[in-house]
Amino acid sequence: MWTAALVVIGDEILSGRTQDKNVAQVATWLNEQGIRLVEVRIVPDDAERIAAAVNELRAAHDYLFTTGGIGPTHDDITVDAIAQALGVAVVIHPQARAILEDYYRDRPGGLNDSRLRMARVPDGAELIPNPTSGAPGVKIGNVYILAGVPYIAASMLEALTGKLEGGRPIVSLTVGARAAESEVADLLRETETAHPGVAIGSYPFFKDGSYGANFVIRSDDGELARATGDDLCERLRAAGYEPVEGGI
Amino acid sequence: MWTAALVVIGDEILSGRTQDKNVAQVATWLNEQGIRLVEVRIVPDDAERIAAAVNELRAAHDYLFTTGGIGPTHDDITVDAIAQALGVAVVIHPQARAILEDYYRDRPGGLNDSRLRMARVPDGAELIPNPTSGAPGVKIGNVYILAGVPYIAASMLEALTGKLEGGRPIVSLTVGARAAESEVADLLRETETAHPGVAIGSYPFFKDGSYGANFVIRSDDGELARATGDDLCERLRAAGYEPVEGGI
Repeated sequence: MWTAALVVIGDEILSGRTQDKNVAQVATWLNEQGIRLVEVRIVPDDAERIAAAVNELRAAHDYLFTTGGIGPTHDDITVDAIAQALGVAVVIHPQARAILEDYYRDRPGGLNDSRLRMARVPDGAELIPNPTSGAPGVKIGNVYILAGVPYIAASMLEALTGKLEGGRPIVSLTVGARAAESEVADLLRETETAHPGVAIGSYPFFKDGSYGANFVIRSDDGELARATGDDLCERLRAAGYEPVEGGI
Repeated sequence: MWTAALVVIGDEILSGRTQDKNVAQVATWLNEQGIRLVEVRIVPDDAERIAAAVNELRAAHDYLFTTGGIGPTHDDITVDAIAQALGVAVVIHPQARAILEDYYRDRPGGLNDSRLRMARVPDGAELIPNPTSGAPGVKIGNVYILAGVPYIAASMLEALTGKLEGGRPIVSLTVGARAAESEVADLLRETETAHPGVAIGSYPFFKDGSYGANFVIRSDDGELARATGDDLCERLRAAGYEPVEGGI
């Protein structure tokens, strides 16, 4: 199993000002690459805390992603913190400078010193293309440094699609039922136990005036996931519930 | 400064299936209590990983909150994992059982074994009232165990409002401008340097066809935050931008 961790960097997430969107989008993208996201840490704009999280997680996982803190302002310290974590210098990447020169050539203000900060990388890094807004992401070792603005992070992920070694993508099937999850808890546990290699999650809801739950079956073996889904539907029917494939 | 950490527990967040809402709501509530959220970890439904995160973070902070994994199904293992982390047994809390007996008395199925799981707590714990759906949250030492469903977590936070010792609430002011943040980066850094005790974050946007940014000034000293906001507005005007108090 290939695993990844994600460090989300930014005071704005920890203050509640900004709703994070990157956890869900990085997670979904990693699933498609056959890589499992197994831990996320959200840390403030603080070099020591960023470096500590990066060093712990890059050693523990095949891949480490970060989002946030690579813009042009004083609170954008991700590159410096990661260079510090890796014990390397920060340098201007010539190709990044060329990209920024091109991007800002006809824009007001041109490539000023603040914008040139976005060409700084830990020594030895490669670039991740940013088709949306010029300033590239950065890859060094197994660390992938992405933008914090979700649509920019998305375009960097798009550029990385199919380029990371992974295992089989996780297959996820949903079965819904108008059952209080506490009425079918035994049935769920028994279904999971009967099919080693799958995990079944239960997510209750209240909708259109009645309680229900969606049961999510996950496995890297698609056939096994489907067999488990069929079995769960049969068990639900036997218990008097009408299963809804695809979920409610 | 009083600090807190949050452990978000759930495969559904790490798979990208569910968009987390608890980070932002716990963060906002903590600010109002004068407590600063300084780290979040998102971990899977795995007892070892939950216990490791809980033990590391409860020692490092004044408060530790968790969300998720306290329902009635087999994947709800938070109470067991935290009891394991603390080295105590899991017991049925008599008051929790009474609450559940009352809550399920007239509901189909009654208080079955699965539902009774929600009365289990680490030995020595107190309850956090849940005015929304019966099953209480749990407090043990400096660890606060909340539900994962956001509106239920919200009602548990509501029940805790004003009950935790904290410092001064963080005051946050926003000033917006139709300026590319890379054009005002120097000005921002200078403003922050001139006012020790404040942090200024810069959050760019593209709206109504033009670029701009909101600058968020944060401090636990309200007067200092306001003086910094006034100073920033003056500096923006001097540089030819029209500051918008309250943000754009």
